[in-house]
Amino acid sequence: MRKESRLIRWIGWIVVVTALVLLGFIIGWFAKPTTNTTNQIASSKYLREFLDEMQSDQIREHLRKFTRLPHLAGTEQNLRYAEQIRKEWLEFGLDSVEMVPYDVLLSYPNKSQPNYISIVDQLGSEVFNTSLAEPVPAGYEDVSNIVPPYSAFSAKGQPEGDLVYVNYGRTEDFFQLEREMGINVTGKIVIVRYGKIFRGNKVKNAMLAGAKGIIMFSDPADYWAAGVQPYPDGWNLPGGGAQRGNVLNLNGAGDPLTPGYPAKEYTYRFSLEDAVGLPKIPVHPIGFHDAIHLLKNMGGPIPPNNWKGALNVSYKIGPGFTDDFRSQKVRMNIHTNNQLTRIYNVIGRIRGALEPDRYVILGGHRDAWVFGGIDPMSGAAVVHETVRSAGRLLSKGWRPRRTLIFASWDAEEFGLQGSTEWAEDNAKLLQERAVAYINADSAIEGMYTLRVDCTPSLHTLVYDITKQIASPEEGEEGVSLYDSWHKRDNWTNDRDAPRINKLGSGSDFEAYFIRLGIAAGRARYTKNKITERYSSYPVYHSVYETFEIVERFYDPSFKRLRAVAQVRGGLIFQLADSLLLPLDVNQYADSLRKYAKSIAQLAQRHPEQMKMYEVSFDSLFSAVENFTIAARDFHERLQTLNREDPLQVRVMNDQLMYLERAFIDPLGLPGRPFYRHVIFAPSSHNKYAGESFPGIYDALFDIENSADPEKAWEEVKRQISIAAFTVHSTAMTLTPPA
Amino acid sequence: MRKESRLIRWIGWIVVVTALVLLGFIIGWFAKPTTNTTNQIASSKYLREFLDEMQSDQIREHLRKFTRLPHLAGTEQNLRYAEQIRKEWLEFGLDSVEMVPYDVLLSYPNKSQPNYISIVDQLGSEVFNTSLAEPVPAGYEDVSNIVPPYSAFSAKGQPEGDLVYVNYGRTEDFFQLEREMGINVTGKIVIVRYGKIFRGNKVKNAMLAGAKGIIMFSDPADYWAAGVQPYPDGWNLPGGGAQRGNVLNLNGAGDPLTPGYPAKEYTYRFSLEDAVGLPKIPVHPIGFHDAIHLLKNMGGPIPPNNWKGALNVSYKIGPGFTDDFRSQKVRMNIHTNNQLTRIYNVIGRIRGALEPDRYVILGGHRDAWVFGGIDPMSGAAVVHETVRSAGRLLSKGWRPRRTLIFASWDAEEFGLQGSTEWAEDNAKLLQERAVAYINADSAIEGMYTLRVDCTPSLHTLVYDITKQIASPEEGEEGVSLYDSWHKRDNWTNDRDAPRINKLGSGSDFEAYFIRLGIAAGRARYTKNKITERYSSYPVYHSVYETFEIVERFYDPSFKRLRAVAQVRGGLIFQLADSLLLPLDVNQYADSLRKYAKSIAQLAQRHPEQMKMYEVSFDSLFSAVENFTIAARDFHERLQTLNREDPLQVRVMNDQLMYLERAFIDPLGLPGRPFYRHVIFAPSSHNKYAGESFPGIYDALFDIENSADPEKAWEEVKRQISIAAFTVHSTAMTLTPPA
Repeated sequence: MRKESRLIRWIGWIVVVTALVLLGFIIGWFAKPTTNTTNQIASSKYLREFLDEMQSDQIREHLRKFTRLPHLAGTEQNLRYAEQIRKEWLEFGLDSVEMVPYDVLLSYPNKSQPNYISIVDQLGSEVFNTSLAEPVPAGYEDVSNIVPPYSAFSAKGQPEGDLVYVNYGRTEDFFQLEREMGINVTGKIVIVRYGKIFRGNKVKNAMLAGAKGIIMFSDPADYWAAGVQPYPDGWNLPGGGAQRGNVLNLNGAGDPLTPGYPAKEYTYRFSLEDAVGLPKIPVHPIGFHDAIHLLKNMGGPIPPNNWKGALNVSYKIGPGFTDDFRSQKVRMNIHTNNQLTRIYNVIGRIRGALEPDRYVILGGHRDAWVFGGIDPMSGAAVVHETVRSAGRLLSKGWRPRRTLIFASWDAEEFGLQGSTEWAEDNAKLLQERAVAYINADSAIEGMYTLRVDCTPSLHTLVYDITKQIASPEEGEEGVSLYDSWHKRDNWTNDRDAPRINKLGSGSDFEAYFIRLGIAAGRARYTKNKITERYSSYPVYHSVYETFEIVERFYDPSFKRLRAVAQVRGGLIFQLADSLLLPLDVNQYADSLRKYAKSIAQLAQRHPEQMKMYEVSFDSLFSAVENFTIAARDFHERLQTLNREDPLQVRVMNDQLMYLERAFIDPLGLPGRPFYRHVIFAPSSHNKYAGESFPGIYDALFDIENSADPEKAWEEVKRQISIAAFTVHSTAMTLTPPA
Repeated sequence: MRKESRLIRWIGWIVVVTALVLLGFIIGWFAKPTTNTTNQIASSKYLREFLDEMQSDQIREHLRKFTRLPHLAGTEQNLRYAEQIRKEWLEFGLDSVEMVPYDVLLSYPNKSQPNYISIVDQLGSEVFNTSLAEPVPAGYEDVSNIVPPYSAFSAKGQPEGDLVYVNYGRTEDFFQLEREMGINVTGKIVIVRYGKIFRGNKVKNAMLAGAKGIIMFSDPADYWAAGVQPYPDGWNLPGGGAQRGNVLNLNGAGDPLTPGYPAKEYTYRFSLEDAVGLPKIPVHPIGFHDAIHLLKNMGGPIPPNNWKGALNVSYKIGPGFTDDFRSQKVRMNIHTNNQLTRIYNVIGRIRGALEPDRYVILGGHRDAWVFGGIDPMSGAAVVHETVRSAGRLLSKGWRPRRTLIFASWDAEEFGLQGSTEWAEDNAKLLQERAVAYINADSAIEGMYTLRVDCTPSLHTLVYDITKQIASPEEGEEGVSLYDSWHKRDNWTNDRDAPRINKLGSGSDFEAYFIRLGIAAGRARYTKNKITERYSSYPVYHSVYETFEIVERFYDPSFKRLRAVAQVRGGLIFQLADSLLLPLDVNQYADSLRKYAKSIAQLAQRHPEQMKMYEVSFDSLFSAVENFTIAARDFHERLQTLNREDPLQVRVMNDQLMYLERAFIDPLGLPGRPFYRHVIFAPSSHNKYAGESFPGIYDALFDIENSADPEKAWEEVKRQISIAAFTVHSTAMTLTPPA
């Protein structure tokens, strides 16, 4: 062979060898997995499986199982249900489930001295007494441990005096009573109807007005749906039914004896005198059969029409009874005891595969006033089914990117205590690691459509998820839940989408959202709020909240509960498993603009004073503008993010996660150290309602009631400045981090 | 060819081809860079270059340049220096440098009405007046804008009365005066010597005791080193020199008018009456030449020996002068004005290559009472050199893993205002992202050895770094700074290592460490504290703090300042560039154990009461034990961490970063809402000193001074419970995250 041809052959070999090695190299290079490639396709397949796995029959089973016996917080039965939930969650396949106890202040009627209200004659004889218990529904006659209606944490005492009727006991009702009618309730017993606002606010208003006791009754105008029979033939409240409930003003403190810290064995406890939020006067709830007797002989002025309920009485204001009955007084007999009691949360976990230090929480309470057919077990059954479905996915090899935490809270009915103590216990972890908290109280309160309350950054995810869920309504086969909801409750004044509400309080998300600044939301099935004017649902907190009321009336097919399970479950699935957190900052910008406009309009009711005291909202509007630009830029950068780079993804996800946190002011709102969210807080006048820019709102409210308007306006200006700063500096968290 | 052999040849080819492709595959697989492989080797090479780049001559130049003119906060000259620093940092190569202004409350003497103190006779004639200014050192005769000695934020007024001498004006001095000597200072003017504690605490004590004015003087016993000449022949304080300084009690609030929020144009400002920390009485500082005149004729009891300074007077307590001079009184003439003033921080940045959202901060102030030869420009020169060295590295292709932030703070001398306002402005970012804050105030206060105050988790890094730096002392060639320091200041009572102190306050790290819970430290060159008993350094805050005092006496070779630059620089380099954060949790556990023991011992001074009120430290000890185990386990897991997995590394780094944060209680310490660190706070009796478990300490202190010991012990128990909770829940942050 010639040298040249040998050379050529050698070159040929070298080329071939090189090409082969290079081929291998290229395959090796690209075969090496980068973290995020295929995960997202798998994730959306698993989402579908997760939703489809949830079954109506299973939810029915869960609800049936956990509503047979009363399970008030602190009772043996509620511990038994906790243990059962723990056992079943483990069987479903969670990585870990633990019982987490706290020792908190609860409140129970005295078993040997029942609470009741009397009308007494001039000799002191009781001529009428309210009933000691509700008539027990059929099938439950042999059940023991049904706690009679009472106001938890009522002061003890036997105050006696004239009644004054103050409508719903709202701030504006007391103002009207005092300023327009000129009636002073000092030393009187106030009677108010339930509804419109949180009962604790009614009690606080009565105390501030000087009343020495307060009676709350359920008026048919507020707890009776037209054309519906009382339970068991329908879902209305019978005349003998009454609404239990706590009458605290905790403002987010949790256990009244350990504000700010978890109620553990070593924790310092305040004395009862220094406890947070306990009313200083006796309080008691009654049904409308009893209320008629107290109201029918009342004297004093005829009330305005909007003070009149639906009972066949005149709703006269008092004080006291008409001439014929003037010598009769009302006496409250309240012997309720505060008691340090052990409660148990159940906490289950699925460890995140890639970001175990990012937490998505689904939590709802387990304790019930009696059976909890609706409140809370319709929610707890939904959580149970969500856990079961997640467990099935785990067994198929799925594991979420982030950690999922499931919570069965205790003692929600006594002031959100289980959830708040756990939030206090884990505050340092949650602050750094919690992505979102989805609440799971009652899953149904009506038969009409979906209701969602959530932080603005969750709006888009809620819409996305509900588009992937079927409507549970008969005759809507093939219609999405989104469309069904949209049709029934359009956000017409704002845009063409289903209405989503602000979060208020009154359930376990409070500590997570308002104190810690964790993105939060809740979803349930609700009534038509335009045609159905009654408050909450008629049998709320009565013995008539049974399994049967759900099975017979609210959701016979259990499809509505299934739809709610899919909404709540879909939210936590996406929050835990999406590569990029499904939080929408632009939505927050939109909401901030709306809230800023609205609070500025409120101030504009006093144009001269605003001029005189040089009050301006410019700084707030400029901050919102700034936030809007930062939000838009942030989402633009998200588009171009290199999703294959795990650190770059984490950096932007951290910006999304900490967005809600940045609205927290560690100094808290004035006089409410545990309400720290500058954008949202429960209204000072009604814990259930969410107020936006609450610091400014409260300062504006004080304008009309302050003896020193200059000082009051100074506080408005201070609050505007705090809001502007908070929005500005939250916008900063969205800009590129360096 | 036979079929078999052809087959064999084919198989051979297939094997070869497969082998080659496989070879390539393997090369490709391993050649593909994972994020963290080679970085760390490069990083330690760059550390060496970074340290070696720092030059004594450069530091001398920087110091010379920035000490030619007085540059009090709020003056034109201090703005000019800020602009110059900004320009030079950009030239050095930082990615960005910005000026960040705030409008805060400062305090200046009235130029047309000088402050002074008089002795007046019975006719009201001034028979003696203190000097209006310090004698200006040679070379500076033509300099204008030297502010005379004054107490910033003093109240205005001309109180007249008898003097009472109260030693250092400490809590214990006032107790001794009132309880043992039976002397009441109500309506009197108090005179105290400077030293031992922060001057603001002296003023507060005098106010609480009822004094109507307070004079502070520099006693040679406290500001005069043996065998040293007064400046300019030595570094002692001349008799005409006096110590300027603010007399606020801010407790971390920053600008007195905007506590909690940055002092921006739209920020709400309190009125002066509602401002935080302003003294209500006139205050003035004098030198010892003037002090002799006020003290020499004093009457009243002879003081205990430890109340006697080194002046040739009797140090009698008063009140008032001896018989011959009884009719003479002392009158203070104070016309100092509070004034809203614009200040400027300079903020420079090097963007982190991989984790731009993790911040390591080197910050020190720029404003000086006069020239600032030591305080703060010896520190500012060191920062300048650090920036220059970092810029050089950048130009060689280095970029730190995390973001580096350099800060030149303004108005530190007026209550840490520049640094605190910026911390407030950026609180939300810093909370989520700050890894550590290294302070850079005066780099030298003596000629003996290194002094380090830092959080326990930085101990190990400080030791590591000082082992890589050469001793600056003559005759110690080849000796490490660590060994030099170890030899001079061994931690003998505890272990065989150089002493490291707790952080107190009095410089700009306060808001970062005590309010926000960011790991922090400071380092400087110091005196021999065993043989040199004077407070700080003699010319502290006088006009004699010149460039020359450093060049002639403190550090003629500028090697000590270079060593300090290398310590500070080495710390931020390692914090910003190490793959794993160089924070040592075990060290924190050791310190907590020591602090818990020591606070329990303090309580044991009252063994009967502890029994009677059932006070126990068990919960705290058990929490510390828990923390110790969690720390050990954490460091064990760090050993087995897969360093190639960027998410796993980030997760553990986040645990390290948030460790210090977890010690923060958003509710703050009692009465001190901006001191939120449960483990460390400035002592309530001396801002300069760091107190461990300050909540418990203060509660115990109250035991002896409370009219209601039961209530006082209840507070001790509450504080123990808060400390135990905080340590427990910080331990939780170290456990595996799910």
